[in-house]
Amino acid sequence: MDARLLIIGGAAGPALLVRFVELAGAASARIVVIATASETPESTEAHYVETFTGLGAGSVRALRLTTRPEANAPEATAVLRDATGVFFTGGDQQRITAVLGGTATDSLLQELVAGGAVVLGGTSAGAAMMSATMIVGGDGPGVTAAAVRTGPGLEFLPGVLIDQHFAQRGRLNRLLSAVARYPHELGLGIDEDTAILTDGDCFEVLGSGAVTVVDAGAATDIRVPSGGPIALAGALIHVLPAGHTYHLTGRRPGIGDHSHEDREPAPPARPQRVSVPAGGGGPAPAGGADRAGDV
Amino acid sequence: MDARLLIIGGAAGPALLVRFVELAGAASARIVVIATASETPESTEAHYVETFTGLGAGSVRALRLTTRPEANAPEATAVLRDATGVFFTGGDQQRITAVLGGTATDSLLQELVAGGAVVLGGTSAGAAMMSATMIVGGDGPGVTAAAVRTGPGLEFLPGVLIDQHFAQRGRLNRLLSAVARYPHELGLGIDEDTAILTDGDCFEVLGSGAVTVVDAGAATDIRVPSGGPIALAGALIHVLPAGHTYHLTGRRPGIGDHSHEDREPAPPARPQRVSVPAGGGGPAPAGGADRAGDV
Repeated sequence: MDARLLIIGGAAGPALLVRFVELAGAASARIVVIATASETPESTEAHYVETFTGLGAGSVRALRLTTRPEANAPEATAVLRDATGVFFTGGDQQRITAVLGGTATDSLLQELVAGGAVVLGGTSAGAAMMSATMIVGGDGPGVTAAAVRTGPGLEFLPGVLIDQHFAQRGRLNRLLSAVARYPHELGLGIDEDTAILTDGDCFEVLGSGAVTVVDAGAATDIRVPSGGPIALAGALIHVLPAGHTYHLTGRRPGIGDHSHEDREPAPPARPQRVSVPAGGGGPAPAGGADRAGDV
Repeated sequence: MDARLLIIGGAAGPALLVRFVELAGAASARIVVIATASETPESTEAHYVETFTGLGAGSVRALRLTTRPEANAPEATAVLRDATGVFFTGGDQQRITAVLGGTATDSLLQELVAGGAVVLGGTSAGAAMMSATMIVGGDGPGVTAAAVRTGPGLEFLPGVLIDQHFAQRGRLNRLLSAVARYPHELGLGIDEDTAILTDGDCFEVLGSGAVTVVDAGAATDIRVPSGGPIALAGALIHVLPAGHTYHLTGRRPGIGDHSHEDREPAPPARPQRVSVPAGGGGPAPAGGADRAGDV
């Protein structure tokens, strides 16, 4: 079974959290909450335990990992071996990598997720840490090398760079800055209450917002001076709301009912096909841009 | 002579304003400031008259146009006929179109600018009004039909949609929303202290920031629901700092020393070739993205 990752851009509404509970097995789910990113893990854990329980999860428990010895302890790995779903909360993504990176917990999670035994969920910092290259900060307006700071993530989803709270915090500059420096990484900007659900080589967008994909691999020229603005020509940008898909290997968006040029029968529905997410946002009626005038 | 437009994304530093004075003729310049967009035209006029005079313009005067009769008066057109440069200040772009649109002033300006007798400058609202379709507002995060409101501009530069204060106010969402609705219009997001200088079919970027070009004409699919998020696949995005150019008709960026595939001799320098703008930002050293690690 392929790895299943539910990567949420922060501020998840009930529809996305219900989806996580369902993926983990609903009434049979055994969910483990890891609030390592949080400055106040106790209250964060309590919030998610209550929430997932209220949404029908069979069992929910927190696994407190604040030190590397804890992340290497047999008690921790035993808890994970029993889980069907593991959820990383928000906070500071660098706490997750600093505490878990390279530990027994990290190794076991990679194995359980890759084998499909565990569905891995994460929001905000818990989303950022899933990529190979993680955005850890950035300052100032403009597209510059200084506009983004990056570090290695835990690589549950290799080949991508994830940014969260994307539309809400106006983070295109830092995502463009990041992919201009690392055009081999695909840039994913995930809005709040929005997620990607991976299914092997493909992901689908869920939730009320959109995922902005920036593919600088397509760029015809990139200049990254050590100071001053970056130049980037010919990058591709896709804005994908709920129901739309993206193929990671081919770097191809699949939008709505697929291209009008291609009227082959639709491919069979994939097992994790999205149910209607919160706030609507299913495939929109066809018709291209509305030129009928102003709103 | 081709129309010369200096379109500034707001908060212009001295280098851009000096450039405008030079284009208008420096010591021989006769500059007219139009502060129609401003809520406080008197102080705005005084500021620009003092600034342009201090930067060496031969003569500078304000033309107060707050009503349509004023914009149709022979006194106004007489002032414009004597000008070598006309500068529109910031404020509310809808005041410019409401007061000037279709008046004798508008018609004469179109003629003088198209004939090359006058260089036309504008910042912020004075930049927005130069496009055929003008962004007049927009609310909320995300890429949606509601995220942007547009109206007709004065069309000094047809075929484009201009947004200002672009990086500083995180306005990608509204520019993407606009071009998804009107993919025949090229989206230009101009940073503060940054400008485009048109020269016929081409523009060059000046200043300390960058111009973000979104070309939704390249999109393979666009869905604009009346409510909820827009889907947009396959749009092109270019981030062009000072010294880089863009060809409007072919929708082609010219970046740095031009593409590595094409080692033909460089074209002859164009007359309005940029001098070194404020804050550096000339063509960056070649070399592609730096994969050497984090900053």
